[in-house]
Amino acid sequence: MARARRRSRPERIPGRIEQPPFRQVRMRYRPIEILNADQIEAIHQAGLNILQRMGMRVLDDHARALFASAGAEIDEAEMQVRLDPALTEELAAKAPEHFTLRARNPAHDLSVGRQDVIFTAVGGPAYVEDMERGRRQGTYAEMCNYMRLVHNLNIVHQEGGGPFEPLDLPAATRHMDICYAAITLTDKTWQPNALGAARTLDGLEMAAISHGIAREDLVDRCVFNGVINTNSPLQLDIPMAEGLIALAEHGQCNVITPFTLAGAMSPVTLAGALAQQHAEALAGIALTQIVRPGVPVMYGGFTSNVDMKSGAPAFGTPEYAQAAQISGQLARRIGVPFRSSNVTAANANDAQAAYESEMALWGSIMGGAHMINHAAGWLGGGLTASFEKLIIDAEMLQMMAAYLEPPEITPETLALEAIDDVGPGGHFFGTEHTIERYETAFYTPLVSNWDNYDTWVQRGSVEAVKRANEIWHQLLEEYEQPPLDHAIDEALRDYMARRKCEGGAPMN
Amino acid sequence: MARARRRSRPERIPGRIEQPPFRQVRMRYRPIEILNADQIEAIHQAGLNILQRMGMRVLDDHARALFASAGAEIDEAEMQVRLDPALTEELAAKAPEHFTLRARNPAHDLSVGRQDVIFTAVGGPAYVEDMERGRRQGTYAEMCNYMRLVHNLNIVHQEGGGPFEPLDLPAATRHMDICYAAITLTDKTWQPNALGAARTLDGLEMAAISHGIAREDLVDRCVFNGVINTNSPLQLDIPMAEGLIALAEHGQCNVITPFTLAGAMSPVTLAGALAQQHAEALAGIALTQIVRPGVPVMYGGFTSNVDMKSGAPAFGTPEYAQAAQISGQLARRIGVPFRSSNVTAANANDAQAAYESEMALWGSIMGGAHMINHAAGWLGGGLTASFEKLIIDAEMLQMMAAYLEPPEITPETLALEAIDDVGPGGHFFGTEHTIERYETAFYTPLVSNWDNYDTWVQRGSVEAVKRANEIWHQLLEEYEQPPLDHAIDEALRDYMARRKCEGGAPMN
Repeated sequence: MARARRRSRPERIPGRIEQPPFRQVRMRYRPIEILNADQIEAIHQAGLNILQRMGMRVLDDHARALFASAGAEIDEAEMQVRLDPALTEELAAKAPEHFTLRARNPAHDLSVGRQDVIFTAVGGPAYVEDMERGRRQGTYAEMCNYMRLVHNLNIVHQEGGGPFEPLDLPAATRHMDICYAAITLTDKTWQPNALGAARTLDGLEMAAISHGIAREDLVDRCVFNGVINTNSPLQLDIPMAEGLIALAEHGQCNVITPFTLAGAMSPVTLAGALAQQHAEALAGIALTQIVRPGVPVMYGGFTSNVDMKSGAPAFGTPEYAQAAQISGQLARRIGVPFRSSNVTAANANDAQAAYESEMALWGSIMGGAHMINHAAGWLGGGLTASFEKLIIDAEMLQMMAAYLEPPEITPETLALEAIDDVGPGGHFFGTEHTIERYETAFYTPLVSNWDNYDTWVQRGSVEAVKRANEIWHQLLEEYEQPPLDHAIDEALRDYMARRKCEGGAPMN
Repeated sequence: MARARRRSRPERIPGRIEQPPFRQVRMRYRPIEILNADQIEAIHQAGLNILQRMGMRVLDDHARALFASAGAEIDEAEMQVRLDPALTEELAAKAPEHFTLRARNPAHDLSVGRQDVIFTAVGGPAYVEDMERGRRQGTYAEMCNYMRLVHNLNIVHQEGGGPFEPLDLPAATRHMDICYAAITLTDKTWQPNALGAARTLDGLEMAAISHGIAREDLVDRCVFNGVINTNSPLQLDIPMAEGLIALAEHGQCNVITPFTLAGAMSPVTLAGALAQQHAEALAGIALTQIVRPGVPVMYGGFTSNVDMKSGAPAFGTPEYAQAAQISGQLARRIGVPFRSSNVTAANANDAQAAYESEMALWGSIMGGAHMINHAAGWLGGGLTASFEKLIIDAEMLQMMAAYLEPPEITPETLALEAIDDVGPGGHFFGTEHTIERYETAFYTPLVSNWDNYDTWVQRGSVEAVKRANEIWHQLLEEYEQPPLDHAIDEALRDYMARRKCEGGAPMN
């Protein structure tokens, strides 16, 4: 085991929010294994079996043709693609176990795979909410503020593809405005909208401009991990297939994520839901390797369960934590980096939101997830991006990062001399051993309040959600836009202006 | 790996709170190992070294005499007891790895050790709080209500020694009233007050009466796991030594729990705090085995850290989770069952209370804890027992219990036929495979609300703490006192009356 690094000193500027520096998290502990190797093999074989007998319905002609070119059996009438198990495994084996995602600021490059973990901000909700104004449809101006916070929170390593839909902008072109915000308001990596070829190509063009290269040169520079959802059960629709192919052609990473809610879009048993997830993920992974052998790809696990009384999706459940950890085992079985999520069904930033998120986080992190999507900000089953939840999640993520740094065990840290000096019944405050270390000895919280009860009452009995509200307002005030070359900014604006004139990407 | 049991059907009586039946939790997964074997050995050796060179200050003459009789080196002037490493290890090795705790209702007997986990209710706070009345000093009547809830919550396996102090009763005798409540209001096991010989003997007498046996016969029936705190650093006071000796003499389990807050009562480094914890725990464990070789004993880990800005104790921190898991490794190193806790510093039932408790629970459970003290109800750094936190914790415990039951992997659960039948783009609601299983397929929540946003708003936007409030009120209405033989009740009352006449156990 490598010697643990000493906890790094938090960034302290008087009066400003104190947080650890930007740094990827390393998962040094052994992932939790819910199932044994035989059981994992049974699910893996079931997944292969599903692809062999039933196959995937692939609605996109080009995608079916690609599958056919690789030797898959195609039923054109049913648009079914059936894959021989050996072919599926052969294709999946071409995917790299590790790769690097490039940011326009190299200090924010991210390592994908091995022990490295990425925390990505929430992406895609329809609504936004905060304490002052409640839940509502979001605007571009508000979305930009959310992205400024994502930039300022060091523990959030990546922007998540637009935290919520800016509904004041036209549907056919707003994906470009989201890209522009992600490029200019932060210099971290960001996720593209891969819904159809046009949107994906716009993202690729704008990313290339931001890196100062031509779109064709992206094949040597992976800047995107774009989420591709299958239409569970066992279907890949045209927009997602187009997005997948465009990303893979450009050497970019697809994050193949079936949406297998047990009891609805997949069997009610976790085993069955995971077998189906595995089949769908394998099919998507295979397609990326047909398009471009060796292109980066991730195995996405999003299996949860529905409330069987109402049919509503449930998140952060015991089944979710198990599914995340078993998905990690399945991803390691095929040697592809694993993506999971931080999720809750709660509609308020209450105890439920926190305990469901913690179940999801422990499930994901101890499942060996290399990327946790929606790691900060997700509320209400993913329909809402919350300003306060962003901050509360950042606290939970910072705590996980600190937990994942094991303590140093050395003669100095074992402190036998200090224990001798203090002696029975004594006190360690003020000893030399303490004074030398106290500033960096422990995790410094962002939201948590450790006041004793009387002090807490004197200070207004402020609960966590209100503290989170104050923190995001202050962080927004502290925001400074990262520099961007003027010519690049011009080029981005020119590209958008031209594409908006052309009409953008109308909904298919 | 043993075949997983199918999730048991929850108890469903129309209109009543639905919960899983009383059953011990089994930790079937491999505990998380924060440190490698060499690092654990370094802490173990540091602990032995501390006992050899510095030793423990043992204020009780009888305890020092016992140590001397076993071959320890005693400095009577300083009241220091020094133990040779070989002697410490030899004594610790006499402790059993597994034993059974007997309840007056055999259905509530508990297995201690191996893969079995016990969730114990909060014990010892000075205050009580609920949503309606806020924080306050508690009364006996309120304490009895709290115990009724502990009895009614199936996921809480054990009463924790009085959830809070009933300050309307005289200090010298209230320990007996607490025992009487624990015996009569629930038929689960309960923890005694081991503060001094008199209180401990009262508890032993009353427990013996409740089991229909003489106090001397308890040596063949372990009914107690009593918490013994060392006075960290490295001191054992008279009341705790008396309690330890009385429990061990009667064949009862001591839970030796140093209170090593890093930076205050122990070194600021986690390594040093754990080395000191290990030394203190080993000294207490050794004493139990001197009193009665082979007597049950547990290794208690309670290492946390202080807020270095204010000196206030912090709980449920990243350091706490690490300390719990390393403590589990240390307890396994010496082969003694491990006790941990569910803790938070939060003063309100907000997101912080939930995420700190989850950090503590995941730390404890994945640390291989055999008993989690304060598993339900602890708030505000342990100064307060909360009615709503009891319910929210019960939800978190139920979720952990469900998470710890791995899914079955069989041809039936892999559901290839059901997947074939539904086909691409279909739906699993209403299929035979779903209908056969949906009632027991997933965890049924106690507190969590999975309504979609509009329904949640229509129903009053009720947050988790309010739902918990409604649940405990209903559970209290549903309470039925477990039967107790009239003669035993009479004997308990007679014993208390006599002892109260004698003056009880005045504070030393």
